Amino acid sequence: MLYLVGLGLGDVTDITVKGLEVVRKADHVYLEAYTSILCSTNGDHSSLERFYGRQVKVADRETVETSADRILDEAVNGDVALLVVGDPFGATTHTDFVLRAVQRNIPYNVIHNTSILNAVGCCGLQLYTFGETVSIPFWTETWKPDSFFDKIINNLKNNFHTLCLLDIKVKEKSIEALMKGKEVYEEPRFMTVDIAAKQLLQVIENRVAEQSILTAHNLVVGLARIGSDSQKIKCCSLQDMSCTDIGKPLHCLVIPGKLHPLEEEMLAIFK
Amino acid sequence: MLYLVGLGLGDVTDITVKGLEVVRKADHVYLEAYTSILCSTNGDHSSLERFYGRQVKVADRETVETSADRILDEAVNGDVALLVVGDPFGATTHTDFVLRAVQRNIPYNVIHNTSILNAVGCCGLQLYTFGETVSIPFWTETWKPDSFFDKIINNLKNNFHTLCLLDIKVKEKSIEALMKGKEVYEEPRFMTVDIAAKQLLQVIENRVAEQSILTAHNLVVGLARIGSDSQKIKCCSLQDMSCTDIGKPLHCLVIPGKLHPLEEEMLAIFK
Repeated sequence: MLYLVGLGLGDVTDITVKGLEVVRKADHVYLEAYTSILCSTNGDHSSLERFYGRQVKVADRETVETSADRILDEAVNGDVALLVVGDPFGATTHTDFVLRAVQRNIPYNVIHNTSILNAVGCCGLQLYTFGETVSIPFWTETWKPDSFFDKIINNLKNNFHTLCLLDIKVKEKSIEALMKGKEVYEEPRFMTVDIAAKQLLQVIENRVAEQSILTAHNLVVGLARIGSDSQKIKCCSLQDMSCTDIGKPLHCLVIPGKLHPLEEEMLAIFK
Repeated sequence: MLYLVGLGLGDVTDITVKGLEVVRKADHVYLEAYTSILCSTNGDHSSLERFYGRQVKVADRETVETSADRILDEAVNGDVALLVVGDPFGATTHTDFVLRAVQRNIPYNVIHNTSILNAVGCCGLQLYTFGETVSIPFWTETWKPDSFFDKIINNLKNNFHTLCLLDIKVKEKSIEALMKGKEVYEEPRFMTVDIAAKQLLQVIENRVAEQSILTAHNLVVGLARIGSDSQKIKCCSLQDMSCTDIGKPLHCLVIPGKLHPLEEEMLAIFK
């Protein structure tokens, strides 16, 4: 059996009782470690091992992509638990994993947990009126994609809120390493709300047509380390967000659409 | 301290380890019992009491609305845990509760958990491309609101999927009881996917203009008891869904928007 076990967002104790039982009994335990991190662990998985009393093998992007079949082999005769930060269906990677299991007639079971897609409700914005979720990637000198902006504008036109997930670079090779075929990785990087706001402000400058819909004065919400003890929520203008520090990762940014009075009251708590 | 503790969706073991610690230590434990139910308990909370080893007071709509201040009084000097099926921010009721606590300077803490808004990802549709969530209410002979339909159409126009939450009637007074001021309640009722599909088909019949966007032949997904052992997912046409039985509550219905090949592959598992 293949178990996909959601870990939630904050610390080791955010796993469900059902999930913990699975992890403690499974024959093999893998941690998917490239689409997200558990805030309190800072990417170090030894606290998970201590809490579970189990060895946890870290499955980075390469392991999952090149060794998926080997992991599934283990699920034919034994129980494999693949641990995923948040909820298992937050990233397409895991849908792909389930599909491979189904193709091989390997039974699977999903132990759900909190995802940032529902936990974001803690800022007071109604989950029902969120539109499409967008991902904001780190820009480079030469690569500045801005399709996220069109999606935000479309959500705003529909009066929907937008959850912006911010880029995570874990175990990425540098361009130099790629060119020389070296096994050298860059330091992990996590986009913070100020960087996201700066990139958004730059797109706004270039897009005259949309300046009536989203401006530097729009109220936005920055969220950090949701679900952990050090959780922080800050509501201010997009302009101010571009120079706001809400601490360590993970961050996400929300662009509110039309506000209900109850939502305005809740946001006021975080101003 | 006021703790809002999410219980997840399936059974008692879907609470997080963090949440269970809070429940076991709290001075007072309330279960919010009118916006949802934990599938496996069938609305009976004694299994929760046995699992927690604690007395759980059921807070129905009346208790929460009329006794909110009394519950908050208890949170001034002690710890109150308000248990909520799914995630605490799935319903506006709880946002209101948090606002009241803040107004009284009572500290609060949220222990997140799975909500159907993220667990719905188990059907294979990408969570990022869901639009606004709609609620489909039970129709009566004389009251047939259909604003949910306009929202579904709007989502489809945007290529977004729509999660339809289906009506729950718990501890509702009959019209007769209301008129006579009696404390008599109707049997709990939970809308099933076939009823939701029938109501949708009726709206489609009346709305000639939107018949090119949503028809009886559209593929839809019915989900039952997500997160529990008896979970069931069925993908078929809206017409077929109107005579499909996927068993006991809770149900929800998804109207897919534009499908990605990976989503098509996943949905095929449930045909």
